Amino acid sequence: MNELIDELRAALGERHVLVDGDLSAFEQDWRKRWRGRALAVVKPGSTAEVAAVVAACARRGVGIVPQGGNTGLVGGSVPDDSGTQVLLSLTRMNRVRSLDAANSTMTVDAGCVLQHVQEAAAAQGMLFPLSLAAEGSCTIGGNLASNAGGTQVLRYGNARELCLGLEVVTPQGEVWDGLSGLRKDNTGYDLRDLFIGSEGTLGIITGATLKLYPAPAAVMTALASVPTMEAAVSLLQLAQSRLGPGLTGFEVMGELALSLVHKHFPHLPRPLPASPWTVLLEQSDAQSEAHARGLFEALLETAFESGLVSDAAIAENIAQSHAMWHLRESIPLAQAEEGLNIKHDISLPVSCIPAFVAGTDAALQAALPGVRLVNFGHLGDGNLHYNVQAPEGRSAADFLREREAEANEIVYDAVVAHGGSISAEHGIGALKRDELAQRKSPVALGMMRAIKRALDPQAVMNPGRLL
Amino acid sequence: MNELIDELRAALGERHVLVDGDLSAFEQDWRKRWRGRALAVVKPGSTAEVAAVVAACARRGVGIVPQGGNTGLVGGSVPDDSGTQVLLSLTRMNRVRSLDAANSTMTVDAGCVLQHVQEAAAAQGMLFPLSLAAEGSCTIGGNLASNAGGTQVLRYGNARELCLGLEVVTPQGEVWDGLSGLRKDNTGYDLRDLFIGSEGTLGIITGATLKLYPAPAAVMTALASVPTMEAAVSLLQLAQSRLGPGLTGFEVMGELALSLVHKHFPHLPRPLPASPWTVLLEQSDAQSEAHARGLFEALLETAFESGLVSDAAIAENIAQSHAMWHLRESIPLAQAEEGLNIKHDISLPVSCIPAFVAGTDAALQAALPGVRLVNFGHLGDGNLHYNVQAPEGRSAADFLREREAEANEIVYDAVVAHGGSISAEHGIGALKRDELAQRKSPVALGMMRAIKRALDPQAVMNPGRLL
Repeated sequence: MNELIDELRAALGERHVLVDGDLSAFEQDWRKRWRGRALAVVKPGSTAEVAAVVAACARRGVGIVPQGGNTGLVGGSVPDDSGTQVLLSLTRMNRVRSLDAANSTMTVDAGCVLQHVQEAAAAQGMLFPLSLAAEGSCTIGGNLASNAGGTQVLRYGNARELCLGLEVVTPQGEVWDGLSGLRKDNTGYDLRDLFIGSEGTLGIITGATLKLYPAPAAVMTALASVPTMEAAVSLLQLAQSRLGPGLTGFEVMGELALSLVHKHFPHLPRPLPASPWTVLLEQSDAQSEAHARGLFEALLETAFESGLVSDAAIAENIAQSHAMWHLRESIPLAQAEEGLNIKHDISLPVSCIPAFVAGTDAALQAALPGVRLVNFGHLGDGNLHYNVQAPEGRSAADFLREREAEANEIVYDAVVAHGGSISAEHGIGALKRDELAQRKSPVALGMMRAIKRALDPQAVMNPGRLL
Repeated sequence: MNELIDELRAALGERHVLVDGDLSAFEQDWRKRWRGRALAVVKPGSTAEVAAVVAACARRGVGIVPQGGNTGLVGGSVPDDSGTQVLLSLTRMNRVRSLDAANSTMTVDAGCVLQHVQEAAAAQGMLFPLSLAAEGSCTIGGNLASNAGGTQVLRYGNARELCLGLEVVTPQGEVWDGLSGLRKDNTGYDLRDLFIGSEGTLGIITGATLKLYPAPAAVMTALASVPTMEAAVSLLQLAQSRLGPGLTGFEVMGELALSLVHKHFPHLPRPLPASPWTVLLEQSDAQSEAHARGLFEALLETAFESGLVSDAAIAENIAQSHAMWHLRESIPLAQAEEGLNIKHDISLPVSCIPAFVAGTDAALQAALPGVRLVNFGHLGDGNLHYNVQAPEGRSAADFLREREAEANEIVYDAVVAHGGSISAEHGIGALKRDELAQRKSPVALGMMRAIKRALDPQAVMNPGRLL
């Protein structure tokens, strides 16, 4: 292996090939659930250098783990503990290559931090709408490799829908220049979407052309108390028909989720009294703030009159909007304060969500008495973060060790029964690989494995992840 | 082969396996450029029957050509003239399986005619936005297999973006149930998008779950005369920033294209005097007709004041809207009246279109003096139908025979030089297969061929098309 290290040093320069010292920033995942050991951490500065690394590793059958901001939640971007895998960090490739305002596109290196991509678009009066909690450190390449979701999927789609073209280094170390600023291109198989969401197992995304949108004239937020999940779903339908594409966010928060926020962060404002469910609505308007406010007021009045909503508050200004979003974003942090929990990032047809929640809550309470269900998420996309917290006063670590498998089985069985997905936006990685192998249709798994063998016959790309 | 025919008859019933009589409706394409001969025409009535046909053919290595409404423009859905391929028509599978209004989805058989899908959505007050000239006879399965585009891509995307899940019969005759009403599902490789746009070469789409949208409260159309293609692109940017997602259509029509319409269909109204370019704008509004009209008036006033537009007309009612669209849709028919022509369905970054048109017009005029350029298309998507018509008075048939290859080379060279695509929305089929092999990157072609071999090692699915 010394020969490989020498070759990597010759290709990238001594200081971009790390083999000792504290490499935990690369070897440990964000949740601290996985800690691996890399043969080397390499930091190429260009697509050609990525290709050189891959070619050198492929020649020796050495596995490569691509990594962006290392903010993934499923253990997909850290090496295993064998010490045989090369960790390839894209973070030095962080250049905005070009922005074409008349075509509403920009082309960026894969290692660009998401927030920088957003800012580069905003500097031209445009919007790159992908937005998620880790945006200050996650990279666009990682967002695409994991098909990230976030808070504006309802209107703008997942990372997949925001990408027009890719540059990829193949498992053979070739460069596919699939960068493209085209809205329509029917020249063969959709390789772009095959790489998007493949979690680094088919090649390494090194660049991307992204879709931009005109920045809205106004963005406005409201909170609404709703009595039941059925009412939340009805409110979604009403809001979609009234606001059309102006409805850019529709989040739901269960009573327990918000109570944990108020418990652990008591200084945060409480715009509304406690309610079984609280909905956060976000509206983006091409016209004006006054226009958006008028639509929100009319919508919420109708919802109030028809009993869907018992109370509501429209943000008066940006600060209040941020405060409303801050409540929503504080839920995972409050959960962490409360102790370890079992996370389920699931999606369902929106129409099935009330029955799923009622049935699964009951099944979990029956099997695990006293268990606390912290339920929140992107209801507009059918995506719940349906998290299971230990009963009050019980050791969270003990509870997880003893009951995690049982809780997962109850939740995932119910998800599958309702036509849902066991991974809505976080991906598979190492965490859900075995679950996927059991639950995905054998026909689909067969095709996925055939594609993996066809494109990466040596199995050097992110081994042990996803498949 | 008699054994195969017997097996097909046993599986589908005698009357759904056609081997003689006039089969030209299946064997000849819509443009009458290809006329093949099928071993048999089979019309399965269910997914299980499709699977039985494919399994029977695959066991014998017999090629299968899937066909929907047979409205494709690239010779992708008719058999070759060998008499050895089975033509599999999906048209008997035309059932709307279910519609879930609360989830904004519907699930349909692949053989459903597009217009019936639109109507089933409209009956529930919802919109299925895919819309194109052949909608009265094309099928949703064909739309997905070719990733159809049409007139509302600017807002709603191509067929690809309107599909959440697929049911597919694999080349081995297995059924993949990938039907799904989920907006987010990150459980492995994106098989759905691999089949979409694969033109029947990887499997047969038998069903699909489609995205629905709330029907807009008002749809309104306007025409605007613009002096240059640069001004048309600037008007697009202005309209996008003013109307946001309310801008659902932005079509451009060259002076010659509209003059052919008026020559051959003199009864059609002429809302605006002749102009180098005429733009058709379509706006969809969630609020009201009055609101949409106010936005259109303000937009066009600004455009007029800044010199982007010299004249404009807003439709006063639905009839006038239809008349405006009718002008646009009559261009291909007027061209057909004028005589055969060389069609180019190309896309470019919107920002490159003015330079592309100026440069390519000049290059064609220099090489083929007197040639007439009928240029129109979906400017909002960067998609031009850039068609080359013989010089006035010259035999169109002679011109095509002698100069088609030369014209294609000039156009496609320019397209590639500007980062464009040689097939924006029509696909590759038989027509552009060789062109694709020459112009697509070898790395991309290598991956496409590897995937084809992996999923269809016997090469029974739509042989000779696309790859």
